[in-house]
Amino acid sequence: MPKFEYEVEMTCGGCSGAVTRVLNKQGDKVSNFEVKLEEKKVFVESDTLSKDDILAILNKTGKATIYVGST
Amino acid sequence: MPKFEYEVEMTCGGCSGAVTRVLNKQGDKVSNFEVKLEEKKVFVESDTLSKDDILAILNKTGKATIYVGST
Repeated sequence: MPKFEYEVEMTCGGCSGAVTRVLNKQGDKVSNFEVKLEEKKVFVESDTLSKDDILAILNKTGKATIYVGST
Repeated sequence: MPKFEYEVEMTCGGCSGAVTRVLNKQGDKVSNFEVKLEEKKVFVESDTLSKDDILAILNKTGKATIYVGST
């Protein structure tokens, strides 16, 4: 399963909590994710969502978001 | 025009910036808005969006949001 990496402009626990909440809302569509506040990085594993689907979801938080790559 | 008031869990400038960006994206649908970080309050004036439409938009940021009332 691809693991997508994003840079998300998060500056406090409220920011990372908001991103966490939005990803949790995706339910089964997201298999696993990690939100790293200090590195401003978000990793998302999904079989059903594309990198662009996830980018759109992250963008809805209103935070500046850049797709970095996948592993 | 109604002015809707919401309590939004914002804890840093990144949080309030995210809310600002999401409201700016609404374009003409939002006539005016104010984001008060320290009071955790957001005021939105709109003729075309209902209080629930705006609540849904604010909820997309992933931040806990409560509708307070309108004036």
